[in-house]
Amino acid sequence: MTDLTKCPEEELRGVYENAKKEYEGFLKAGISINMARGRPSPEQLDLSDNLLNLKKQDMTLHDDSGADFRNYGVLAGTPEARELFAEIFGVPSSNVIACGASSLNLMYDYISQCCTHGCLGGEPWIFNKKRKFIAVVPGYDRHFAIAERFGLEMISVPMTSRGPDMDAVERIIEDPDVKGMFCVPKYSNPDGVTYSDETVERLAAMKPAARDFRVIWDEAYVVHDLYDEGDKLANIFDAAKKYGNENNFFAVASTSKITFAGAGLSAIAASDDNIKDIMSRFSLQTICYDKINQARHTSVYKNLGDIRAQMKKHAAILRPKFEAVLDILHRELDGSGIASFSSPRGGYFISLDVNVGSAKYVGRLCKECGLTLTGVGATYPYGVDPNDANIRIAPSCPSVEQLKTATSILCCAVKIAACEKLLGCEK
Amino acid sequence: MTDLTKCPEEELRGVYENAKKEYEGFLKAGISINMARGRPSPEQLDLSDNLLNLKKQDMTLHDDSGADFRNYGVLAGTPEARELFAEIFGVPSSNVIACGASSLNLMYDYISQCCTHGCLGGEPWIFNKKRKFIAVVPGYDRHFAIAERFGLEMISVPMTSRGPDMDAVERIIEDPDVKGMFCVPKYSNPDGVTYSDETVERLAAMKPAARDFRVIWDEAYVVHDLYDEGDKLANIFDAAKKYGNENNFFAVASTSKITFAGAGLSAIAASDDNIKDIMSRFSLQTICYDKINQARHTSVYKNLGDIRAQMKKHAAILRPKFEAVLDILHRELDGSGIASFSSPRGGYFISLDVNVGSAKYVGRLCKECGLTLTGVGATYPYGVDPNDANIRIAPSCPSVEQLKTATSILCCAVKIAACEKLLGCEK
Repeated sequence: MTDLTKCPEEELRGVYENAKKEYEGFLKAGISINMARGRPSPEQLDLSDNLLNLKKQDMTLHDDSGADFRNYGVLAGTPEARELFAEIFGVPSSNVIACGASSLNLMYDYISQCCTHGCLGGEPWIFNKKRKFIAVVPGYDRHFAIAERFGLEMISVPMTSRGPDMDAVERIIEDPDVKGMFCVPKYSNPDGVTYSDETVERLAAMKPAARDFRVIWDEAYVVHDLYDEGDKLANIFDAAKKYGNENNFFAVASTSKITFAGAGLSAIAASDDNIKDIMSRFSLQTICYDKINQARHTSVYKNLGDIRAQMKKHAAILRPKFEAVLDILHRELDGSGIASFSSPRGGYFISLDVNVGSAKYVGRLCKECGLTLTGVGATYPYGVDPNDANIRIAPSCPSVEQLKTATSILCCAVKIAACEKLLGCEK
Repeated sequence: MTDLTKCPEEELRGVYENAKKEYEGFLKAGISINMARGRPSPEQLDLSDNLLNLKKQDMTLHDDSGADFRNYGVLAGTPEARELFAEIFGVPSSNVIACGASSLNLMYDYISQCCTHGCLGGEPWIFNKKRKFIAVVPGYDRHFAIAERFGLEMISVPMTSRGPDMDAVERIIEDPDVKGMFCVPKYSNPDGVTYSDETVERLAAMKPAARDFRVIWDEAYVVHDLYDEGDKLANIFDAAKKYGNENNFFAVASTSKITFAGAGLSAIAASDDNIKDIMSRFSLQTICYDKINQARHTSVYKNLGDIRAQMKKHAAILRPKFEAVLDILHRELDGSGIASFSSPRGGYFISLDVNVGSAKYVGRLCKECGLTLTGVGATYPYGVDPNDANIRIAPSCPSVEQLKTATSILCCAVKIAACEKLLGCEK
């Protein structure tokens, strides 16, 4: 496509008029498409319906000591569930706790624990009025919401194609009030970036001024490849151990986007010291997690190979959706000079950057046509994108046909916004 | 039995020698019985195995709006689960949130929320260094552990046959640093007391100096009757509304002792204001609870009638166990002047009070014979029973035969301890 920032005004007016005409058509079409959240589609959920049809005899409902999984106890999770997540995280099962349905809950509770009880004997964060957290931007709104909830002032660090800008991170952690950061190290939300080996190494080697600095390592998309050859993420715990820093990391994952969203399993991976600390809290916070759901899952998914086979089925559904969006983005926006976007090889999102100061307007234009995007700004702390430029696209739930329509609307809106800015007739 | 506190020394010596002889027999018998915790027995768990054999078509997996319970969303729980718990609590379903497997977790998180964020706009409790909580004694060790975890100094109030000593409660709540109390209002743990209508009314009418005072109303045994005619507990929310105090109460219940322990459903009942406050936290703390397990449960238990039918099956298993223990306690200790015990009509425990200063010794004597009781002292804050007199008996898990042996050992130990005290030859 012509670079709109460089083309003659007459040509620009032509593009603008065409876009407006196309937009009028969308307005009249009575469209209703929701691309707001990274939810699995019904077809993906169907892949796990075998979990709804198991029988008692399909499941292992006791451990070697005879503990009955239908009863209280076995607080760290069933051996089978811990082994499964140990393979997923690449850590020994003794460094894993298998929990309930929500990894978000595990992160929230961990930050809550740090605030009220500190980390491994450190001062509770809540008594530090200047407590801060690094926010990698753009990022996941629910991470930012937890930091905000607990009064952690967020300091933005830009995402690069290799992960967080580590020069910025290394500078910021010299402040002892900076207590940690959230990371989605594989197929980051929303950029789809997998941290490079060098980034993982620099994170592992960090010597923050705060001795109770914690990296929340959210492995939300740890096995969520769109292609047979997935991105490779270095093992953070192996790296951290070299520097004696394994206590700085708290990792979580869940099967929400492997089996059922919000009704699967979640798990924690952490150092020996952190596991001990977390277990001592868990012994007060709950009697045990739902071991029957753990047994249900591990009767179907016995190892990482079984999980990978399931993820290939997810990919077969998701890949055409991502490609449908990307095809149109390429066709409509490549070379236009008015937008750039990510081409992720896994995860749940495509990140679109439009002209500075245009994203909210684009969102409004889409909304008026019946297309709901993730709230513009949500990918930044406090819901405010200082550049008003980033838009998160979540292609998982709508059908391929809907995605084609949605992406056409989006590209049309991006062009309208850009033309108005370039022509000086902004609305 | 003869009143040992009044009988001639010779007779007392005879009782002591007989008890010691009996004890020698138990020591040699190689016994191993655990009466420590209120766990359901395998036979009780078997009652719910139908939940392990359901099929997808047995369950309602969407709501009226079309929301798919296999996916994220529906944060307040499925309509069916909320309705079921609404009937159990006796409140409108709009005042109910159906959650995950653990009601202990809900209580822990609520206290945590009060500490970090306060109640309905009040100051976070954690900034009040003198924060206190009322502990009804004897009581539930896990309640006390939560209060201790969050630095709430516990002030003991004795349990009476009608509930907490309300004169004491009404005096203590004049201190604005006293922030609340835990209650197990029906079949209390461990006394099996159901609060009288007058007690419920006085609790409902309380005007604590602390405007953010909260009663954690733990309905752990709300439908857990041992006999067809169960105790009746007045509705705390109906009562509280008369005084404009409904915000003072936070109720929880679970199906852990109805279906599977630690793998059932839990729920919250609270005022409109508190529900709103809790939901705003939940929206950050999790994406949703496990709605499939909710659907699984409500496909079998559609209403309170279904629950009551299930509880009759539990009672048929539990009642002979309670009666086996009570028969022996009556036979061995009635009139002895050395012990008293509760005769609960529901719940999971029998509370035994022995001579002041004897309970730990009795526990040790039992342990040496291979009988594990709830840790003596655990029914008091900080694990310290100032009288060293209370012993909690949990008859649910062992078999009737084991319970007969266990109670015989216990009575034997009680007699040994009492005789030694009375004879002045304490060990």
